[in-house]
Amino acid sequence: MSLETLADLFHDELRDILSAEKQLVKALPKMAKKASSEQLSKAFEDHLQETERQVERVEQAFAETGKTPRAKECAAMKGLIEEASSMMKEKADADVMDAALIACAQKVEHYEIATYGTLCTWAQKLGYEKALELLKENIDEEEKADQKLTQLSGQINAAATT
Amino acid sequence: MSLETLADLFHDELRDILSAEKQLVKALPKMAKKASSEQLSKAFEDHLQETERQVERVEQAFAETGKTPRAKECAAMKGLIEEASSMMKEKADADVMDAALIACAQKVEHYEIATYGTLCTWAQKLGYEKALELLKENIDEEEKADQKLTQLSGQINAAATT
Repeated sequence: MSLETLADLFHDELRDILSAEKQLVKALPKMAKKASSEQLSKAFEDHLQETERQVERVEQAFAETGKTPRAKECAAMKGLIEEASSMMKEKADADVMDAALIACAQKVEHYEIATYGTLCTWAQKLGYEKALELLKENIDEEEKADQKLTQLSGQINAAATT
Repeated sequence: MSLETLADLFHDELRDILSAEKQLVKALPKMAKKASSEQLSKAFEDHLQETERQVERVEQAFAETGKTPRAKECAAMKGLIEEASSMMKEKADADVMDAALIACAQKVEHYEIATYGTLCTWAQKLGYEKALELLKENIDEEEKADQKLTQLSGQINAAATT
């Protein structure tokens, strides 16, 4: 790869988030299964459906780059999911595990918010109007997902034994 | 490890961010060296000094847990830094590389903001007043560092060839 232009960098970053979202599609069902709180489990399931639509939007956002949608392994998401998987193997009180799952999920959301923020800035600069629209939809959903997790954490942290 | 209580989880998360900050102390000088923009290079150098102080604050935040400060490898930060290192090896136009460095750094900031956000919520719930104060100082600095990068990205993206 050669990063001669901002367009090259945009394309590279789009490949990164495509990988990240695809990795998350595989991880969310495990998190939903692990959660004890029904509300939390449902939040993960709902976000899985959103994430599947986000993958499609990211794929559509490649159109203006003139290149085929193709993921490039996102090492950061791999690390985030590794951390969540290792946490899920711990022996833990149910509410404490739920609090830990929320923490892992909020790190994932923040990773995605940062990436989509950068991608939106670059899409605007490059005049990729369609991509900008698609990516804005994704960042809005990620921000709402993060807020939802913050709300749930209030109840779950209160239940976790101190 | 056994996560029986929220206090156990707080301690575990504190070990994670201690590792993350220590990894960042090693990565930032490389990013400062790689940046072409003098302002960006200085921003990384300034943040290195902040990060060194943040490591000290995290170590102090262990006091209320009654345990010794000891890092536990943060896989997520490892992935984030791997991504930045791999980016820095690419053949790239100077302004495009600077835009890429900002993107990597903002992902790092968001990881830290998410983690400190969780830690502050838990410290409050646990009544760890001193830890809360220290961790709030860190999250404030991370948020300012993120805003500074957003400001710089305006100029740097404008300079990057489209």
